Amino acid sequence: MGRVTERRRVIRIRDGAVSTRPDTLVAEEPLEIRLGGKPLAITMRTPGDDFALAAGFLVSEGVLASADELANIVYCAGATAEGENTYNVVDVRLADGVPVPEITLERNVYTTSSCGLCGKASLDAVRTTTRWPLDASPAAPDGIDPVRSDPIRHDQVRHDPIRIDTATLAALPDRLRAAQRVFERTGGLHAAALFTTDGELLDIREDVGRHNAVDKIVGRALQQGQLPLSSCVLMVSGRASFELAQKAVMAGIPVLAAVSAPSSLAVDLAAETGLTLVGFLRGSSMNVYAGEHRIALPAGAATPTD
Amino acid sequence: MGRVTERRRVIRIRDGAVSTRPDTLVAEEPLEIRLGGKPLAITMRTPGDDFALAAGFLVSEGVLASADELANIVYCAGATAEGENTYNVVDVRLADGVPVPEITLERNVYTTSSCGLCGKASLDAVRTTTRWPLDASPAAPDGIDPVRSDPIRHDQVRHDPIRIDTATLAALPDRLRAAQRVFERTGGLHAAALFTTDGELLDIREDVGRHNAVDKIVGRALQQGQLPLSSCVLMVSGRASFELAQKAVMAGIPVLAAVSAPSSLAVDLAAETGLTLVGFLRGSSMNVYAGEHRIALPAGAATPTD
Repeated sequence: MGRVTERRRVIRIRDGAVSTRPDTLVAEEPLEIRLGGKPLAITMRTPGDDFALAAGFLVSEGVLASADELANIVYCAGATAEGENTYNVVDVRLADGVPVPEITLERNVYTTSSCGLCGKASLDAVRTTTRWPLDASPAAPDGIDPVRSDPIRHDQVRHDPIRIDTATLAALPDRLRAAQRVFERTGGLHAAALFTTDGELLDIREDVGRHNAVDKIVGRALQQGQLPLSSCVLMVSGRASFELAQKAVMAGIPVLAAVSAPSSLAVDLAAETGLTLVGFLRGSSMNVYAGEHRIALPAGAATPTD
Repeated sequence: MGRVTERRRVIRIRDGAVSTRPDTLVAEEPLEIRLGGKPLAITMRTPGDDFALAAGFLVSEGVLASADELANIVYCAGATAEGENTYNVVDVRLADGVPVPEITLERNVYTTSSCGLCGKASLDAVRTTTRWPLDASPAAPDGIDPVRSDPIRHDQVRHDPIRIDTATLAALPDRLRAAQRVFERTGGLHAAALFTTDGELLDIREDVGRHNAVDKIVGRALQQGQLPLSSCVLMVSGRASFELAQKAVMAGIPVLAAVSAPSSLAVDLAAETGLTLVGFLRGSSMNVYAGEHRIALPAGAATPTD
């Protein structure tokens, strides 16, 4: 893991005082992901967990959904003119019988609709592609129903096995930050972590790219035969974009929590697929944008009101 | 600009109290960029300034470098099955005689080296592709030389016309934040802004994608015939990745300043191309990672020491 950070000389200016010193930076290198020998994508990532990153990327793209569909992943040897392995090219081989997607420009993105491209098409592509559909949001009176003013009746929840209480959610950001080792040294990484609904940390990955951190989490779970991650909460250190919500859905993760704001399309995707989406998770405050049937409020909490 | 934000219902939880209310979210929609009718890339972006985004993307990719190379940009009409224009597909037409790059998978990334892929190849690709090379970092005694302990002699700077003092740099983050209108409402956008070396704000763009905000800045400058932006400072609200440093270099911008950390590859690219890279720009503190000859220290500042 020596390549996770690199040292460079920096000139520090503090209130007019100038000094030079070595500084620890987050490492960034390109990674080319090949599928059956054919180039599929290049991402700028922090080296480490490259096989997991490649596997997770293919889960997000709908190519892989379980460990037995994966034959193996190797670093492409002799990658430079000098025959040196840069460890920046990985080749993924699918198991016999697993269909290899047609590799085209469109195949690199989350939608095959190159005409009529719109948010709705992007949502539909995820919803129809995922192999691990989430439980749809149950109708009232299960969980919080924002258009009703009835008390929440947790004992009436029927369809969905996963619930997480707000106190547990509120504790996740501190646990995430405490586990971010590389961020401590560089200030330069995004993090993604997998928690149980009891708030136990299962895995954490840091990367210069936020999507890569999630791919590494998901890919490692796939390699260990743990997909779908249907009893887990995915926590991310930044914002919740469409792409991150997509990755949660494709891995069968029912709850996505983010420190910062979600985008409109992330909320729409969550609402359409049954994903619970929590944003602005800070201290004891949070916003629930979708999938509120999985959120258990503390005893005595006020009823949702308009 | 009505699509820059969207309203969704949110459940707010604050210290156990629950309420529902409408919330303003940053809008996110896919944008497909076509070149001469052929799909080139899809990006998730905040609608608005789409033509500038497309033009700026093509500057970053080395396809465009001046306004006269651009014939026009149009929204692709009749984009849905119902003939409705989604305003999510733009087609860029190059001027007669401007070479249309071969559109392949590799064409979508910053390097054409699919074998021997490494950070060095990525750096070389930018350095050899840019049409607006920056002044290389002059040798000592021009500017701060971290391996020397001589006083800085600003009067000895010869080669580089652009200098910015640290007090001006220190004022940029507050000016950026003050101009971020959409962030105020949504908490969900990245911003990029162009300043003069006197700290005057020339342009600011916000987007759900950090690279898109920079592309919109650069594309607008191209459309207005202002490339290269050789007397400007580009300020970004987040971290400085390789990709953002690449975009600065390709637009001929000599100074990139970021609120947060740079990556190793961003620093390497800056060092190799002569870009001034400032990170952790907060209050009166900042780190200068490369191109320090463009930084003018305040009178009486201490000499850089190891």
